[in-house]
Order: sequence, then structure tokens, then C-alpha cells
Amino acid sequence: MRKLLVIGIGAGNPDHMTVQAISGLNQADVLFIPDKGAKKNELAELRRQICDRFVTNPKSRRVEFDVPVRDLPVEDGPAPSYRSTVDDWHEAIAAIYEGLIRDEIAGDGCGAFLIWGDPSLYDSALRILERVRLRGDVAFELEVIPGITAVQALAASHKMALNRIGDSVLITTGRRLTEEGMPDNAGSAVVLLDGKCAFNTLADKDVVIHWGAYLGTEDEITLSGRIGDIGAKIEKVREEARRRKGWIMDSYLLRKPE
Amino acid sequence: MRKLLVIGIGAGNPDHMTVQAISGLNQADVLFIPDKGAKKNELAELRRQICDRFVTNPKSRRVEFDVPVRDLPVEDGPAPSYRSTVDDWHEAIAAIYEGLIRDEIAGDGCGAFLIWGDPSLYDSALRILERVRLRGDVAFELEVIPGITAVQALAASHKMALNRIGDSVLITTGRRLTEEGMPDNAGSAVVLLDGKCAFNTLADKDVVIHWGAYLGTEDEITLSGRIGDIGAKIEKVREEARRRKGWIMDSYLLRKPE
Ligand SMILES: C[S@@+](CC[C@H](N)C(=O)[O-])C[C@H]1O[C@@H](n2cnc3c(N)ncnc32)[C@H](O)[C@@H]1O
Ligand SMILES: C[S@@+](CC[C@H](N)C(=O)[O-])C[C@H]1O[C@@H](n2cnc3c(N)ncnc32)[C@H](O)[C@@H]1O
Repeated sequence: MRKLLVIGIGAGNPDHMTVQAISGLNQADVLFIPDKGAKKNELAELRRQICDRFVTNPKSRRVEFDVPVRDLPVEDGPAPSYRSTVDDWHEAIAAIYEGLIRDEIAGDGCGAFLIWGDPSLYDSALRILERVRLRGDVAFELEVIPGITAVQALAASHKMALNRIGDSVLITTGRRLTEEGMPDNAGSAVVLLDGKCAFNTLADKDVVIHWGAYLGTEDEITLSGRIGDIGAKIEKVREEARRRKGWIMDSYLLRKPE
Repeated sequence: MRKLLVIGIGAGNPDHMTVQAISGLNQADVLFIPDKGAKKNELAELRRQICDRFVTNPKSRRVEFDVPVRDLPVEDGPAPSYRSTVDDWHEAIAAIYEGLIRDEIAGDGCGAFLIWGDPSLYDSALRILERVRLRGDVAFELEVIPGITAVQALAASHKMALNRIGDSVLITTGRRLTEEGMPDNAGSAVVLLDGKCAFNTLADKDVVIHWGAYLGTEDEITLSGRIGDIGAKIEKVREEARRRKGWIMDSYLLRKPE
């Protein structure tokens, strides 16, 4: 049977690669490299760099592929009424994955998908592979290799814990933060997938933000402070960086005032 | 000035070690290995194994140390009224850390603390080092190296995402789950630090649990299902494993029924 590895490659620093991920890369005959269009070419570039540096298996081939782009970030987009759109979109990608698996991996071969950060966090690859399995046209064995997430990279750069002592942490999206505000059941919230500086919509300006963009890369920027003091500055710095580089990836930890 | 590395070593599998963590280990002159008493000797053993396997720097020394034990797991324990007890306890550990830093690291040397999983998740080392800094007796530069958490290890073993599409995830403790039940603001909850199978206190028996113990190790056990179907079985399996090995570490993901 075909074997598929879904490998977390870390969130920006190639040194996030684990021993397990490196050995997974070298177990695969085929490495699948998504290239989601020009805007995020630097990310595809990082995947290539990781392969250049860590792949020592001479039999391994790389296959780059494109997936249909959606306007909204996939894992954030769907208000419930959009669910069917995501469904269509995932189904289209499932067809592409199925083709890759069938056409590029030999019947007893091994292929690997390289996933930004960790496959379990706001990433659709596992859900899409589940669809491929349900379609029933190609059979495969699946193994998932964890990776450093943007959340760990953020906390490391700020040299701090995510949680207050004994307390919970909510991991959420910019959209939900705007709709729901700070959680009642957690003193800390980590926000990903925020294109609109949702932190500036919070009523409580005493909430403290620990923000980071391009974490783990040479372009890393971090800023911390009371939202009332630093919220506007982060928005400005973020917009300037986005213009300069053409894209941005940022995350932040929000902590209620003690 | 002294340099301190706080290194995440992954959550049970030595192959969780990242390239960055390995190079951090080899940058340090002194590696601090906590040994929190007999019950968790296997964990200290894993830290030693990691050093044996990955340390190539001939100048590096290991220093094992003991910290005062507390009955409650530190990062879970404190209901607000216990806060002062944790305070005392952390202060005692801070004094120990301060001694280690002052006595074991040369004035321009580098020491590393090896942290289970990632230093940002339910771990007190960063908070304690902040105390050491505030005491003002030894100065040091701090660098944090992220690690694979039990949360990523859990999701990888279950080959699933933590979040539902576009939805939030609550990371919480067994104690809080018992007190608060399933969150209103997240379809998924990840529970750590649960000594009492708190999932069996949930009213909604249709919640699905994805449970894992000794994740990433040879003894890994995973079980999934409706709490109503499998909750009692997990409790039994957990108790048998705990008796057999003398200790247990387990985590789980709870997902509301669709
Ligand atoms: C689709 S999610 C994927 C998350 C990824 N699977 C992980 O484990 O980190 C993308 C979001 O992750 C965050 N992110 C990923 N890499 C980042 C980085 N290097 N710096 C800051 N944020 C990052 C941003 O919030 C971005 O919108
Ligand atoms: C004090 S917390 C430390 C968490 C750690 N810093 C991390 O990043 O995973 C310890 C809790 O983590 C979880 N845990 C850690 N390692 C685990 C493993 N190998 N298998 C299952 N659970 C684990 C358990 O819930 C345990 O009670």
C-alpha cells in the first residue's frame, strides 16, 4: 500500500525541523511542495530550502503543485453559511491530492506533504486527505509528524508562557476575536489568521498584547505592550511590513490585566 | 554576561528534538537536568538519553539537581487562595536556580535548562527565571528554544486537527474542565494535567474524546470514541497503566458532537 507522511516543518525557521521530520523527508520517494501563488512564494521557497538542506535520499523527487486559491484564508473563512463553499473548495483540492497520490507515488511507495508549522493547527491537509480516503479511489497508510507551530515560535520569541498559572488558553482567529472579544474562560488568548488587527477592536485597552510577525525568520518583528499604548503602533508597523514584503504572517498572545 | 538557554526537548520521543534544540544543547557548557524524585525517574532518564545522543560538545558538563516537590502539580494546583503557597514554592526553586546559575556557570559561560515539551505550556521555568532576574543577584541573557508539545504529539498520534474549521480551541487543565465543563466559545478542548479523568464528569456523553498516554514513547496508548461509550474504559486502561509503570502522563482532545 502507498504510505503518506504529513510532516510539520516548523513555522519559519528551518532549524525548527525535528529529527523525526528530517527522517520522514528522507523516507519519502516524492515530496509534495505546494506553491499557493506569487504572494506567498517566500513560503514555497522556505520549503525548497528545507528540502535542499535536509534531504539526503538520492532517490527522492520533488513535485510542486498548485491549489485553487480562495479569497478568504481557508481555515478562518467559514461563517457557517459559507460552509458549502469551503466544502466545494476542499473537494477540489481532494481531487488534486488524489491525482498526486495516484500518479506520483508507486503502489508501494512513500510520499510526503510538507506542512507549515504543525499539521494539527489551522491547516486543512489532514481533513482533505480524509476526503481522499472517503472517495475510495486510492488507498494509503497515513503517518503524521508533529512540527513547531507559530504559537510556540511566538512564545519563544517573547520568552514567556502562554498560560497564567493553572489557567486556560484560548487559541482562536482574528474573526472570532472581533466577534466574541476576550474569552471569559481563559486569561490568555492566542490569535492566528488575523488580517485586520482584530486586537484593536477589543473594548478593554488594558489587555496586554505580545505580537510577532515573520517569526523565526530574518525578518522577525516583535512588539509588546498595553493595547491602549501599542495597538495603533502595531497596526502601522504591520502595514508597513506587509507593503514592503508583499505579504505578512503574524500572530499574537493577549493577556488580561492581572 | 552569563547566557541561559531554555530548551524545549519534545514530549516523549527523542526524535522530537529540533535542529535548533540540538545546537542549543551543544552551545551550553552546563546542562541542568532536574530529577523530581523517583516517581518520574523515567523522565529524567529521557533527558539523559537526549544528552547522550545529541551532545557532541566535549566541554559540556551535566548537573543534576532536585527541586522541592509539591503535592499538587504546580501548573494546575493553584485555586486563587493557594496562590501564596505556589509563590513560596516558586521562590524556593528560584533560590535553587540562582545558586545553579551562579555556582555552575562561569561569568561568560552558557547554561541550558531542558524543558519537557515546550517551555511555554504549563511549565514554570520561565516564570521562575523571571523571579531570579528580579532578585537581582545574578544577571543573565535568556534565549528560549521552542519544542514539540504534548498537544502536537496527541494530534499527530490521532492524525487529526485540533480545531474544527475556522473554530477556536481551548487548552485547559483537568481541574478547570471539572469546574467549567466544555467551553461555550470553542468546539474543541485540549486537556492536560488531569489526574482524575475529568472527562467523565462532563454532562454531555456525546462529546468525543481522543485520548493518549505516554505519547511519543514505546508505551504510547491511544483511545478514541464517544465519552458515553469509552469514558469508563479509558479510566480503567489509565489506572492499569499507571499501576504497571508507577506513573502516567496523559492528555486528550475533546470535540463537541457536530
Ligand atoms: C493557516 S495558519 C497555519 C498555522 C500552522 N499550521 C502552524 O502550526 O503554525 C497560518 C497562520 O499562522 C500564523 N503564522 C504561521 N507562521 C507564522 C510566523 N512565522 N510568524 C507569525 N505568524 C505565523 C499566522 O497567524 C498565520 O495567519
Ligand atoms: C506540566 S505539563 C507540561 C507540558 C509540556 N511543557 C508540553 O509542552 O507538553 C505536563 C502535562 O503534559 C501532558 N503530557 C506531557 N507529555 C506527555 C506525553 N508524552 N503523553 C501524554 N501527555 C503528556 C500531560 O497532560 C501532563 O500532565
